[in-house]
Amino acid sequence: MKLLVTGFDPFGGEKINPAWEAVKELPDTILDSEVIKLEIPTVFNKSAEVVKEAINNHKPDVVLNIGQAGGRFGITPERVAINMDDARIPDNEGNQPIDEVIQKNGAPAYFTQLPIKAMVEGVKAAGYPASVSNTAGTFVCNHIMYQVQYMIATEFPNVKGGFIHVPYIHEQVVTKASMPSMSISDISKALEATLVKIVELKDQNDLKLVGGAEH
Amino acid sequence: MKLLVTGFDPFGGEKINPAWEAVKELPDTILDSEVIKLEIPTVFNKSAEVVKEAINNHKPDVVLNIGQAGGRFGITPERVAINMDDARIPDNEGNQPIDEVIQKNGAPAYFTQLPIKAMVEGVKAAGYPASVSNTAGTFVCNHIMYQVQYMIATEFPNVKGGFIHVPYIHEQVVTKASMPSMSISDISKALEATLVKIVELKDQNDLKLVGGAEH
Amino acid sequence: MKLLVTGFDPFGGEKINPAWEAVKELPDTILDSEVIKLEIPTVFNKSAEVVKEAINNHKPDVVLNIGQAGGRFGITPERVAINMDDARIPDNEGNQPIDEVIQKNGAPAYFTQLPIKAMVEGVKAAGYPASVSNTAGTFVCNHIMYQVQYMIATEFPNVKGGFIHVPYIHEQVVTKASMPSMSISDISKALEATLVKIVELKDQNDLKLVGGAEH
Amino acid sequence: MKLLVTGFDPFGGEKINPAWEAVKELPDTILDSEVIKLEIPTVFNKSAEVVKEAINNHKPDVVLNIGQAGGRFGITPERVAINMDDARIPDNEGNQPIDEVIQKNGAPAYFTQLPIKAMVEGVKAAGYPASVSNTAGTFVCNHIMYQVQYMIATEFPNVKGGFIHVPYIHEQVVTKASMPSMSISDISKALEATLVKIVELKDQNDLKLVGGAEH
Repeated sequence: MKLLVTGFDPFGGEKINPAWEAVKELPDTILDSEVIKLEIPTVFNKSAEVVKEAINNHKPDVVLNIGQAGGRFGITPERVAINMDDARIPDNEGNQPIDEVIQKNGAPAYFTQLPIKAMVEGVKAAGYPASVSNTAGTFVCNHIMYQVQYMIATEFPNVKGGFIHVPYIHEQVVTKASMPSMSISDISKALEATLVKIVELKDQNDLKLVGGAEH
Repeated sequence: MKLLVTGFDPFGGEKINPAWEAVKELPDTILDSEVIKLEIPTVFNKSAEVVKEAINNHKPDVVLNIGQAGGRFGITPERVAINMDDARIPDNEGNQPIDEVIQKNGAPAYFTQLPIKAMVEGVKAAGYPASVSNTAGTFVCNHIMYQVQYMIATEFPNVKGGFIHVPYIHEQVVTKASMPSMSISDISKALEATLVKIVELKDQNDLKLVGGAEH
Repeated sequence: MKLLVTGFDPFGGEKINPAWEAVKELPDTILDSEVIKLEIPTVFNKSAEVVKEAINNHKPDVVLNIGQAGGRFGITPERVAINMDDARIPDNEGNQPIDEVIQKNGAPAYFTQLPIKAMVEGVKAAGYPASVSNTAGTFVCNHIMYQVQYMIATEFPNVKGGFIHVPYIHEQVVTKASMPSMSISDISKALEATLVKIVELKDQNDLKLVGGAEH
Repeated sequence: MKLLVTGFDPFGGEKINPAWEAVKELPDTILDSEVIKLEIPTVFNKSAEVVKEAINNHKPDVVLNIGQAGGRFGITPERVAINMDDARIPDNEGNQPIDEVIQKNGAPAYFTQLPIKAMVEGVKAAGYPASVSNTAGTFVCNHIMYQVQYMIATEFPNVKGGFIHVPYIHEQVVTKASMPSMSISDISKALEATLVKIVELKDQNDLKLVGGAEH
């Protein structure tokens, strides 16, 4: 089994992007499954092109994108991606779509194929806070989750896709009042726990499938 | 123009449901548009039947459902409803669907037809906190929002539908630590501000339409 | 019985100060006790001079100062004032003491003479969130609470003093993300509930007296 | 220079107390200063007796007590301890003082002799969130901080005392919704950063001294 795990490149003048730093620290193999790590641009559409090229090159069984949602208290696998870009701030190339459809022929939303509730339990068993999230927002994170699902619906029917939001890291909240944070190392260990569950349950999906290509 | 506004009945042994109390305090007319107020059961499916009957009886132009999301800091119009019931607790008749599709032939999600960003601005101009929400959860609130959208997609193409989550009221947080709250009266005034915007902008929708019957 | 209740004047270029607006809305008489309302400057030391003059003029039995602590979720009577000014921002006249003793001959701290737990219960019974606070901070709020206590310790032994922090009002959080708020009118009603308790329990103090003039 | 650092024993049926676990992981020497680690009981008065015995045995220059304040977002050195026990729950031996004076002959409050602002800066420079706190509460944490200060005021004039509150650890919040947390290892590294500052600035105190024996 092959797992493609992505993290965004540094955003808005920052030197590092914690999501990518945590992905980089993942082991190269999890339960005999290969982990391919990929840094992707924090840019609408271009992020999707980079992922698509990697899917074509590596033929992964699973695509898991990781992004940061400052303010969250734990590891939050996303349930659903919606067909909507709505950016409060520009991406790394200055794009700022407002209430734009991502794919005109895409479904209004796609649900993840990953066992998100088992992944949450796996993180908790490893000693870290986690919960299922029902929104990936409307910025580049939801965008890439949606785009991967659209690729699955249209081109790669055997791939499973999903997205996980992670909290701020400690260094980022030093100048912020009252914001939860985790270390890169702990985020990475928690992500590893989700990958273990994905591999263990590769034949299961704890969401009844809805909203696939039939819509 | 006719506005059908609903609130849920008391839930889980409570004597009142704040959402319905706030709806009851709305004026009967807003900018010459009639406001029809309806209490609906906090029950999967049955809530939808009650709304459907009211749509058939009253022929409203707009259906706006109101529910409570304890923990939110202001008035939050919802952007999207997803085709998924996932209840952590039972509804008022003991139903507790887990990861269930709401409508097998429904779209994975429906976006509201209401001008949610203008509604948020209307509430703020009236002096109350508000923001667009991208998730109505997976309990009865998302359920009724989804069901109304499904009715619109399949039976009532001229109706506009939407949902607003409101915070706890003050009385509810007296025994809770550190939870935001508003008075019923203030919630009602804020809801009125959203209805004014809906009437004023009846020919507009600030989301580009996606995910309708074509999917 | 005479109650002197103060609120600060507008701070930092604001047009209104919610604490004073809430005080202004208090009734003039509570359970036959006269309520004297006084706006005081948001200025170290000068605020204390204004209160002292009012004590000399009105001979109140109780001095209750009201201030705002943005971020608090309810009405929070303060237990204790400490002998320390430490201002992160300048007051309305540009004073910004850092780790300064307020009164060289004062006690390190003074506990309120008011029945703060009963006051909290009174607010809750009126339907609003409330809790005892153990810190009034180190800005002008703690300063005036401390100064009144110092006056009581040194000049007005029959006066009872205390301080209540109130949350943001709704209008203030319209541009702030995720901050709790109450309306001026609700804050005022909650403050009235504390005054009722003060009058009812005028011969009681639910803190065993410590740290008075003997130190 | 000798540093006595304490952590509480497990409380309320828990198997570990994170504060003590973090203390245990501290190095034995910091900048040539010896670090003596002591587990103390989560019990009013008895905790103070244990610390006093250790002061007599080890003759430390600094006594730093560590405790947990669930809900805090970072490392929070305390500014002041107040002469007040007020326990919402019983301690480990069933004591539950309500509004009780700790020391009849003690000052109403004592300020720490430690350079708390420099300690905060040290933690931030190490990459962890931190801020000065103005209340240690009214449970065993404030109690031990007060008692150590009382000992300093009455018996050990050359000792410097202080207290630091630390957040929940990750394992503790797995079953709690939306609570900030840090790993034991990160808490320990942050505490080490405060000790470095204490040693470096052993001749400084960034609070002007107030409320000592002279009152």
